[in-house]
Amino acid sequence: MAAPSPVSPLAPKSYPDLPPVEGVRFATAAAGIKYRGRTDVMLALLDKGTQVAGVFTKSKCSSAPVDWCRSKLAGGKARALVVNSGNANAFTGRDGLEQARFTAKLAATATGAPIGEIFLASTGVIGEPLDARKFDGVFDRLVADARPDGLLEAAKAIMTTDTYPKVVTRKVEIGGVEVTINGMAKGAGMIAPDMATMLSYVFTDAPIAAPALQAMLSKSVQGSFNSITVDSDTSTSDTLMLFATGAAAKRGAPKIALASDRRLAGFKKALDDVLLDLAHQVVRDGEGCRKFVEITVEGAASAKAAKIVALSIANSPLVKTAIAGEDANWGRIVAAVGKAGEKADRDRLAIWFGGIRVAHKGLRDPAYDEANTSAFMKGEKIDIRVEIGAGGKGTATVWTCDLTKEYVAINGDYRS
Amino acid sequence: MAAPSPVSPLAPKSYPDLPPVEGVRFATAAAGIKYRGRTDVMLALLDKGTQVAGVFTKSKCSSAPVDWCRSKLAGGKARALVVNSGNANAFTGRDGLEQARFTAKLAATATGAPIGEIFLASTGVIGEPLDARKFDGVFDRLVADARPDGLLEAAKAIMTTDTYPKVVTRKVEIGGVEVTINGMAKGAGMIAPDMATMLSYVFTDAPIAAPALQAMLSKSVQGSFNSITVDSDTSTSDTLMLFATGAAAKRGAPKIALASDRRLAGFKKALDDVLLDLAHQVVRDGEGCRKFVEITVEGAASAKAAKIVALSIANSPLVKTAIAGEDANWGRIVAAVGKAGEKADRDRLAIWFGGIRVAHKGLRDPAYDEANTSAFMKGEKIDIRVEIGAGGKGTATVWTCDLTKEYVAINGDYRS
Repeated sequence: MAAPSPVSPLAPKSYPDLPPVEGVRFATAAAGIKYRGRTDVMLALLDKGTQVAGVFTKSKCSSAPVDWCRSKLAGGKARALVVNSGNANAFTGRDGLEQARFTAKLAATATGAPIGEIFLASTGVIGEPLDARKFDGVFDRLVADARPDGLLEAAKAIMTTDTYPKVVTRKVEIGGVEVTINGMAKGAGMIAPDMATMLSYVFTDAPIAAPALQAMLSKSVQGSFNSITVDSDTSTSDTLMLFATGAAAKRGAPKIALASDRRLAGFKKALDDVLLDLAHQVVRDGEGCRKFVEITVEGAASAKAAKIVALSIANSPLVKTAIAGEDANWGRIVAAVGKAGEKADRDRLAIWFGGIRVAHKGLRDPAYDEANTSAFMKGEKIDIRVEIGAGGKGTATVWTCDLTKEYVAINGDYRS
Repeated sequence: MAAPSPVSPLAPKSYPDLPPVEGVRFATAAAGIKYRGRTDVMLALLDKGTQVAGVFTKSKCSSAPVDWCRSKLAGGKARALVVNSGNANAFTGRDGLEQARFTAKLAATATGAPIGEIFLASTGVIGEPLDARKFDGVFDRLVADARPDGLLEAAKAIMTTDTYPKVVTRKVEIGGVEVTINGMAKGAGMIAPDMATMLSYVFTDAPIAAPALQAMLSKSVQGSFNSITVDSDTSTSDTLMLFATGAAAKRGAPKIALASDRRLAGFKKALDDVLLDLAHQVVRDGEGCRKFVEITVEGAASAKAAKIVALSIANSPLVKTAIAGEDANWGRIVAAVGKAGEKADRDRLAIWFGGIRVAHKGLRDPAYDEANTSAFMKGEKIDIRVEIGAGGKGTATVWTCDLTKEYVAINGDYRS
């Protein structure tokens, strides 16, 4: 293992106060999954009646816990979430699924919940067998220890190459009653398969039925976690889940069955906000990063086309190394637009770095000022806007970070 | 500009002797395109009757010279090729095309050839205007200086971040008469299938008509230049051209009109060989590389699917950094297979590094020996074979290099 990294220079300066979500309790422990004495398992206990939704990796080589969660999601109910770090339980075959089942069984016994309402995730190295017997006895202690204010500690327990825990909180009203949404995430590359990438869990006391949660989550993920990239690699383990305990119903919050319910307007906005905040925190912990980059593409034939072009720019190693070098290299952006395969008019292309237009109508901007642009590129937040001239109204925004020598060092070294 | 790089550790140890191709003469000069006193333009003079074929970038933002060449290719005839380094004449709008036309006009005047038989390429920075007046007077000297044995010097003149010139030669018989195929290429970064900041020119004295040349070239590029990647970035300027002077007809070589002519069997094989050799040389000069990596995918539903999976592995920054770190990290290969989107059976997956099977039937190979594998990973040539278990016979091989800190350094610095 490489020496512990210092905290990312793009990390938030402080953690928010996290008011508890009624119906959720957390506990963490050291189960010795990979190393002795390191906190590597967290349990979230959910009150009876908790509704659940989830979105998972599209990888054809998904991990055993992802397969487990997918198969249990149809029930719509959740009573516990178990996440371990140190091992991804991915590429572990039939035995991997057995280990997942055994983990869920131990958790079901300890919590008294049906096994079908236990959700799992594992994050760490791919291709090493997970020995779930290490959890034996651990869950009893976790159940006894679980506390409503344990979210930050839980977020710390699931870190791998993360340099800081990622948490967020929002308050919003449903039918005039205040509800809370708390979220946590791990990931330091959206994408770092060996580190089993990105896990995120969101908890609310709002009384919303599983199908409505699922519809909102599937939509909200598009503009948040599905709009970030650190290194273009997709993991076997990506998991995002949303749990609603319904406890706010006791305080008069209306029970909501359908995502189309107008009383959800504020909640949807807050959920978008929570997921985007967590997604940005993942990018801000991108391995080796020093710049937070926002890329907006306009003038595409459709929003989908705009996103393809924006991700082509965001995933280009040449664009990302140029940003690391504080070089407003618009030529590489032109090349990335060109290779995306979507309709674009080279001779109507315009590019801005921050507020500075560097290219216009397919040419370097005559008013382009190298000194101004260089000063902007020294900043921590780099905004890039590209008008691709396809004559449409399609637009999309994605977020990424720069590609530095430290990324190579971290990833050339991880297993050793 | 960064300090000149030392020669890539993967460079060939020597240059081949290059027998001249009758009907082709080369000359180079310093036109001051970007820097004074640096050789930055080369002219290839082609005897009357030379037939031509070409393959170009698929970028939607192709350069002005690419647009020029495409429009002239239908004629099938070539009398001169002009290539400059120092400026790509890409993202230069209508003026860029005017500069290309002016360059061709100067070359046509100096050579006495029709303007429609002048082919062009420019390589270097994107987005800076090219001042073609700098060529004024230069072509007269080049025409006077042109020599049949100037191929190696010509290859040197078109280098940008290349650390060595790339040349190759083969002899083969058509109808019992020996013909020569000589090739040259430049390219070191922005290299991905379709094709790269990659220029390559192949010259032969074989008497083959343009449509037959085009058919052979379009086919041969698939297994060579379209099967390599350095950094997944595609350029605006990729150009591969094949010129046939026909001079061997004087020595009795039969004139060939159709690509289906059986007398071309040996020539096709030699052409494949020439293009693959040049493509490998481009990868071996990949920016910052220390390992030459061959990736073979088997058991896919089709050859096309196999190539998509192979390129997903070859373009994965996590796979490439692991190889740089001499780590046989099969977990990252599993993740790259999973993200490719093609049919694969996780539980039938097998992976080999060199001759060593590290994973078998979706699990770490029980016989896997870390010490053996580590020793293999220290080598310069890394072969990876992946059986993806989709039950088909589709197979593909692609080539790439590792991703090192030097890649980041070279590309974070290039414009400055």
